[in-house]
Amino acid sequence: MANTPQVGILMGSESDLPVMQEAGNILAEFGIPYELIISSAHRTPVETHDYAVNAAKNGRKVLIAGAGHAAHLAGVLAANTTLPVIGVPIDSSALKGLDALLATVQMPGGIPVATMAIGKSGARNAGLFAASIIATANPELQEKLNQYRASLAEKVRAANARLQAK
Amino acid sequence: MANTPQVGILMGSESDLPVMQEAGNILAEFGIPYELIISSAHRTPVETHDYAVNAAKNGRKVLIAGAGHAAHLAGVLAANTTLPVIGVPIDSSALKGLDALLATVQMPGGIPVATMAIGKSGARNAGLFAASIIATANPELQEKLNQYRASLAEKVRAANARLQAK
Amino acid sequence: MANTPQVGILMGSESDLPVMQEAGNILAEFGIPYELIISSAHRTPVETHDYAVNAAKNGRKVLIAGAGHAAHLAGVLAANTTLPVIGVPIDSSALKGLDALLATVQMPGGIPVATMAIGKSGARNAGLFAASIIATANPELQEKLNQYRASLAEKVRAANARLQAK
Amino acid sequence: MANTPQVGILMGSESDLPVMQEAGNILAEFGIPYELIISSAHRTPVETHDYAVNAAKNGRKVLIAGAGHAAHLAGVLAANTTLPVIGVPIDSSALKGLDALLATVQMPGGIPVATMAIGKSGARNAGLFAASIIATANPELQEKLNQYRASLAEKVRAANARLQAK
Amino acid sequence: MANTPQVGILMGSESDLPVMQEAGNILAEFGIPYELIISSAHRTPVETHDYAVNAAKNGRKVLIAGAGHAAHLAGVLAANTTLPVIGVPIDSSALKGLDALLATVQMPGGIPVATMAIGKSGARNAGLFAASIIATANPELQEKLNQYRASLAEKVRAANARLQAK
Amino acid sequence: MANTPQVGILMGSESDLPVMQEAGNILAEFGIPYELIISSAHRTPVETHDYAVNAAKNGRKVLIAGAGHAAHLAGVLAANTTLPVIGVPIDSSALKGLDALLATVQMPGGIPVATMAIGKSGARNAGLFAASIIATANPELQEKLNQYRASLAEKVRAANARLQAK
Amino acid sequence: MANTPQVGILMGSESDLPVMQEAGNILAEFGIPYELIISSAHRTPVETHDYAVNAAKNGRKVLIAGAGHAAHLAGVLAANTTLPVIGVPIDSSALKGLDALLATVQMPGGIPVATMAIGKSGARNAGLFAASIIATANPELQEKLNQYRASLAEKVRAANARLQAK
Amino acid sequence: MANTPQVGILMGSESDLPVMQEAGNILAEFGIPYELIISSAHRTPVETHDYAVNAAKNGRKVLIAGAGHAAHLAGVLAANTTLPVIGVPIDSSALKGLDALLATVQMPGGIPVATMAIGKSGARNAGLFAASIIATANPELQEKLNQYRASLAEKVRAANARLQAK
Repeated sequence: MANTPQVGILMGSESDLPVMQEAGNILAEFGIPYELIISSAHRTPVETHDYAVNAAKNGRKVLIAGAGHAAHLAGVLAANTTLPVIGVPIDSSALKGLDALLATVQMPGGIPVATMAIGKSGARNAGLFAASIIATANPELQEKLNQYRASLAEKVRAANARLQAK
Repeated sequence: MANTPQVGILMGSESDLPVMQEAGNILAEFGIPYELIISSAHRTPVETHDYAVNAAKNGRKVLIAGAGHAAHLAGVLAANTTLPVIGVPIDSSALKGLDALLATVQMPGGIPVATMAIGKSGARNAGLFAASIIATANPELQEKLNQYRASLAEKVRAANARLQAK
Repeated sequence: MANTPQVGILMGSESDLPVMQEAGNILAEFGIPYELIISSAHRTPVETHDYAVNAAKNGRKVLIAGAGHAAHLAGVLAANTTLPVIGVPIDSSALKGLDALLATVQMPGGIPVATMAIGKSGARNAGLFAASIIATANPELQEKLNQYRASLAEKVRAANARLQAK
Repeated sequence: MANTPQVGILMGSESDLPVMQEAGNILAEFGIPYELIISSAHRTPVETHDYAVNAAKNGRKVLIAGAGHAAHLAGVLAANTTLPVIGVPIDSSALKGLDALLATVQMPGGIPVATMAIGKSGARNAGLFAASIIATANPELQEKLNQYRASLAEKVRAANARLQAK
Repeated sequence: MANTPQVGILMGSESDLPVMQEAGNILAEFGIPYELIISSAHRTPVETHDYAVNAAKNGRKVLIAGAGHAAHLAGVLAANTTLPVIGVPIDSSALKGLDALLATVQMPGGIPVATMAIGKSGARNAGLFAASIIATANPELQEKLNQYRASLAEKVRAANARLQAK
Repeated sequence: MANTPQVGILMGSESDLPVMQEAGNILAEFGIPYELIISSAHRTPVETHDYAVNAAKNGRKVLIAGAGHAAHLAGVLAANTTLPVIGVPIDSSALKGLDALLATVQMPGGIPVATMAIGKSGARNAGLFAASIIATANPELQEKLNQYRASLAEKVRAANARLQAK
Repeated sequence: MANTPQVGILMGSESDLPVMQEAGNILAEFGIPYELIISSAHRTPVETHDYAVNAAKNGRKVLIAGAGHAAHLAGVLAANTTLPVIGVPIDSSALKGLDALLATVQMPGGIPVATMAIGKSGARNAGLFAASIIATANPELQEKLNQYRASLAEKVRAANARLQAK
Repeated sequence: MANTPQVGILMGSESDLPVMQEAGNILAEFGIPYELIISSAHRTPVETHDYAVNAAKNGRKVLIAGAGHAAHLAGVLAANTTLPVIGVPIDSSALKGLDALLATVQMPGGIPVATMAIGKSGARNAGLFAASIIATANPELQEKLNQYRASLAEKVRAANARLQAK
């Protein structure tokens, strides 16, 4: 189906939505269908497990998971699928996301989670990274990524031009 | 059954056994039947899930989980049972167990994991804490805990006596 | 007595009450009688010692202690009782609770403190964990814990439903 | 060409080879052609830049970069290609890889680096993650990944069987 | 030319300008011509590379680079020039600049970056340090630095006098 | 009595003796009578409490406490005496003494512990600091401290002379 | 002279005054004459050196130094006097006082600095600790310290009474 | 004089010599006269002060200071000269040089210290950075730096050639 989500973006709590929506916004810019799902590694473990187990046959190509505190969501997804799983640590505890970062990135051998920076910039990069994965088999998307990258450079150049004009 | 394990001690890897055996040794001192299980949150998620889901009806009263790196095992067990779950962070990564500590202790609201110190002293304390849980409904075991505590004090006093005699 | 507190919730300072009340609220939900006590490891050491020494014979089954800075309260209680002691690190210093976390969790061998996450979610989990300890000998309470857990899952599902309906 | 490397594994120093070879070994297990390249972000910036700029047209699909200290290699590659770049922090400084981890993972918005755990297990996971990316358009490889995952589970089960047989 | 900038102050993002302007203000106090440039290590790598490669022949004597997150800008400049490069870590991520500090200071052997404190005081010190470099061959500027230092002492003495007069 | 110990050096475990003996050695150099005591905040809380409560009337003028892990010993002494208490964090856990440092130094308002560096140099400094406290009312001891300080300077000068003679 | 300050409280910057005044307030409660001095280890090194060198002969018995960032003030004082020096780390940088704490407490062997907690509670404790040093030779002051301690306990008891009365 | 040292390399202890000699070796490669001096900020503060105060008129152009623990040496030098001061944190404490890094780099506004990486690679970079400062007024030395940089690149290329030839 044309509209089958290619990327599943999961988060454990409604409060993580403002961060994880950033990943979705990037995917939308690239025309990649995605879905946002609230599913908790700890509070709805069965749904989370089932989502991961069925993700590939349901047409997902990449999963993105955002979580704070002892962030287990990305790891739990990765344990139940061999699709690429991208983790976004969220700064929602007293430790400012250091806990979520270490709980996401320090995965033991065999079960990789591709970890991004803490917070919104990490969520945007998760969207971009998912696009770059899909683009490995999609030259048109690859070209869009190149154009997006060029537009980032253009924004830096414009900012510099504003500064020089002061 | 008299010998049904009351405590399940789980670890994700054979290499964690020298640490987690310490928990078992303490339980053995108190005559509490236990079992040691290798089951990985990430590599055998289904077995781990099933163990947790069935632990209560199989007669377990307390679970202990030891893990290093992004230590998810205790959290995954806690997500699938309401038995008390005790977590032991293990120092098996470059970050000396700080990653395992934060990934174990910083659980989000709703799914507690009772976290002990990093490494062998944490594993011993996990055994003791499991005993103290069981003892809340077992006066005889409570009395053994009191005697054990007295024996710890006696060892400190003996060490001090040796020092004063120098 | 029916109303003898089964759980003692201690804190060293009145300013910790908004955090530690969360533990009490959870216990109230489960119908477990508890008491909130302000008693400082450092400023009222005798009262703190006496509370711990007498806790078991006064009918307490579990103690919960919340403290910030160099958080010694849980450890001091644990040194004077063999009841299960649960520690809640509180974020009340410049170091954002990392000091309280390490001072609570890194207990030496022999004297366990079951440590929860920093702050309010840790306090709620302390209440839940205390309930799970008491439930090991109380099937009715165990059943309530299972229902509570199911309600947490239901809330996640409801949040997801709201999101999908957008 | 059948043997065109699909994955480029770069490192800044010969001393990083024992770690980064682990990524290559995994790719070899999956029959994915790769190359190992020593190229420094700081000491051979032009070669590093040129490698990244030409990687896509030279047939690379994924890049892996390992570095210690202030690890810039993955970020410099990512700045010059829109191929997926995977970063492996290496523990080669006094700070045990925490510096390399933060310098790799905390990329600003727009230029993602998919970060793995510090050291050899991270390098192995980088190889696996690269395979999972390529597998998104290669069902046969996807199947191999599933088999590999099954073999990891089997090893855990075998270890548990050995333990139970003691 | 009299007005050729002797110091180039680079930053990766317009949002870093309020911090890096502090370095410029100090240079202005000493009458040292400087320029402020927005150029990103990751989003405009070619411009950044070209700036560094041509800095010496364009008359720059010292470069200052400010960046947050995984701060690569100073390192990328240092990789492409042998002029002295001064790095200013900026506190713009959840980790409060610790990431930027480590990513700036922990440079591998061969490519030094002179790192200052995180944030505005670091930016001011970067300006002063650039002045002290230029002053090594400019006795008049050296004298101005001595006077500036004397004025700092005078301010401390005046503050103390105010305090004693209370 | 001439030989009444003026300084009590306490430690929780025999294994801390090689570190804490350093404090005693310094005191011996200054002719200050001291005693070394093994007494644990957690395993012999009553003896530890009694020692602190009676320290002043038994002639102690300063207490020194060394502990690792969640180091509570100095704090527990300080809670039970208003004599000056000096804390020495010991590096005996996976976290390299950072836990002991924070658990010793981050005391809440009202109950100070004078904290030294982690390990043997901290223990030596604890001895010196105890001497400097006693010297505030003992001009002869003050003079000895000045001579000791001069001897430290002499050692540095001698080391420099050796270096210059190479 | 009756009013010769016995305690010198130094700080490097006027902005540290609200923290360090807390130390003075405590000393005032005990009737101990003190002075507050702004003198910077880095900006007025000669005055700072001279203050320390002459402190003993000017009648000071204890020095207290508060500083943020790379806090050198206490160490510089301690290098130039054998009077007891107490250090108070101040949270005035991006790193929340962790830098000041480590720069104050980790003194090398031979030159102790008695370090207190970060911030205002540390400053209050510095005042109390200075009082406890002076009290070692002043039984009347020792008695006041005991009363102060008793008043702290009374406040905790009163807070608990308020809580129980709710 | 032709042989007047242009760079003074200071360290507080003989045990730091193996690290700091690396800085000297680099300067020797470039034919820059230097001296190695043992002088402690804390144990020989007068000599250290005098060295800094007289460094400029004695012909020094740059100072390098290496220190561990609460590393104050570079800051103390910088407080007493306006010559450029480069700091090298040394890993000689339990905290692995993190203490020395923060105590060196987090200098307050007005007194910059140019901080290098922890340990030997930092010392080498200190030598290189001193050379780059002197080279700002010495085109011949600038050319040598460019050649040195080229030789570093050549070594990387040679290492890569060896790897490709395997």
